[in-house]
Amino acid sequence: MATRVICYGLGPIGQGIARLALSRPSITVVGAVDLDPAKVGRDLGEVLGGPPLGVLVSERISALATANADVVLHATGSALARVSGQLTEIMALGADIVSTCEELSYPWTTQPQLAAELDTAARRAGVTILGTGVNPGYAMDALPLMLTAPCASVEAVRVLRIVDAARRRGPLQKKVGAGLSPAAFAAQVAAGTVRHVGLPESLHMLATSLGWQLDRTDDQIEAIIAEREIVTEFAHVLPGQVAGVRQIASGLRAGKELLRLELRMYVGAPNPQDTIEIDGNPPIKLTIEGGLHGDIATAAMVINAVASVAHAVPGLASMADAPLVHYW
Amino acid sequence: MATRVICYGLGPIGQGIARLALSRPSITVVGAVDLDPAKVGRDLGEVLGGPPLGVLVSERISALATANADVVLHATGSALARVSGQLTEIMALGADIVSTCEELSYPWTTQPQLAAELDTAARRAGVTILGTGVNPGYAMDALPLMLTAPCASVEAVRVLRIVDAARRRGPLQKKVGAGLSPAAFAAQVAAGTVRHVGLPESLHMLATSLGWQLDRTDDQIEAIIAEREIVTEFAHVLPGQVAGVRQIASGLRAGKELLRLELRMYVGAPNPQDTIEIDGNPPIKLTIEGGLHGDIATAAMVINAVASVAHAVPGLASMADAPLVHYW
Repeated sequence: MATRVICYGLGPIGQGIARLALSRPSITVVGAVDLDPAKVGRDLGEVLGGPPLGVLVSERISALATANADVVLHATGSALARVSGQLTEIMALGADIVSTCEELSYPWTTQPQLAAELDTAARRAGVTILGTGVNPGYAMDALPLMLTAPCASVEAVRVLRIVDAARRRGPLQKKVGAGLSPAAFAAQVAAGTVRHVGLPESLHMLATSLGWQLDRTDDQIEAIIAEREIVTEFAHVLPGQVAGVRQIASGLRAGKELLRLELRMYVGAPNPQDTIEIDGNPPIKLTIEGGLHGDIATAAMVINAVASVAHAVPGLASMADAPLVHYW
Repeated sequence: MATRVICYGLGPIGQGIARLALSRPSITVVGAVDLDPAKVGRDLGEVLGGPPLGVLVSERISALATANADVVLHATGSALARVSGQLTEIMALGADIVSTCEELSYPWTTQPQLAAELDTAARRAGVTILGTGVNPGYAMDALPLMLTAPCASVEAVRVLRIVDAARRRGPLQKKVGAGLSPAAFAAQVAAGTVRHVGLPESLHMLATSLGWQLDRTDDQIEAIIAEREIVTEFAHVLPGQVAGVRQIASGLRAGKELLRLELRMYVGAPNPQDTIEIDGNPPIKLTIEGGLHGDIATAAMVINAVASVAHAVPGLASMADAPLVHYW
């Protein structure tokens, strides 16, 4: 029997999730929710630029209380404090939740009280909540974590993710600061607008899961400056301007760097890749040539996680303890 | 509070598991079982070649009914039909089971009746049974499966594992046929003694988890012939003699190869590696340089899976649906 889902949030990522859900015979989309007045009341199919589906976009999830959804696919924002009310409303429907909210991917360390409240509410409702995506949720946390499974001991984990922003959607190129002057970039760093949300969550997922008490964490962010002119569909970057961003989250204990997550996202990156190195017994080094593609991959993670939350114990789960997520 | 485990089976792999269990502060070894009269009644520490531990080796698991074990680490054999009685006896203790039995890693397709019986018994006892190891259990099934998580679609999965048997323990070199004449190798293939147990289970874990109905499966096995003289601590292979084995399990639908698992284990392999290729959207290619080391890794998988079975729903689990296994 097909899994009944509601698509909550119809921005670019949410639309990608909805399209992928509609393409899967094992999933039936039984409802959609978005706050945007330009979308409310319209047919989901038309919002997606296709033929009508007979599913109207609701303004509130409570309007779908009788839709009998198994899972709600939630993609409305990155900040947990701003979406936790939505999650609570969804739980009232008795549906499991898979969300792209970056801060939900591992909130136990960064927002422990909110995490505990959501966990309690989810257990009470008998539902599972999971925050996932390609990053956070996979490339820099769950995959490195799973790579430690064959290790008798682990001393350190280092992850390097290089994304060529030129191959990605326009908003990402803007988000990484492509085309800004170094001064304008610095102002955006100060305002918090170029930061990749979720890197601290990835760091803490790894630290807690590996049983490591960190006594210091660092989160550095800096511009990568273009050395040559780079022209993409969405950006024109001159030498000396910003090509993108490099962000490093590290976790230390007694002065030793146990965890290092380095993310480089810039237009024209010549060697996109995901590399994971485990210092342990045995040592392991993994490389994914070309890297994992973020836009497709985040929608895919959400859809593929639907089977996982259905099989999980109730509560606030994370990719570190949920049943293995895979294509199905 | 430390997890209480019993080590059941004290052959080379079982001893490696016991040593690793003893090295972890979060695990307490509360009992040991082995059939070998040379081990029964002796102190586990002495069997392991170290100082006494105050844990005597029992002949039967039923003698440990009051040991209050959380998990039994089971390493007595590869053939499920031969160890299923042991698993049933363990369940009577109310303990979860992590086993190295290769055929237990995914018995649903190859031995469906036995799988269903074990599942029913485990649910009734409220315990989880998991078969795992580095191969089967990880390198050629769970890891490729997890690598599909960021894929919107998957058309085919190919795995290539190359193991340099010269770097591994003597029994493995013997098992792969190193030093045999081609005729003697063919006789051993016919007798079933050089076959890697578990490759069909890995194939079916992938097929079922990905939702693929196969209409044909193949399992080929052939000798890799030495082109030069190879001398190791355990074997002396002349040119023209067998260096090791190449085994390929493939799964087809409508003439198309959807799954291909190729395992090469031979002395002197110049480029040991694990390579996984996903044909999908996005396509993914992963390489682990040097490959995952099997001997250490299998013991590590078992120990690391202890946390996973404790968190899993009761029943016969597999690495495809158990909570993510990782170092802890």
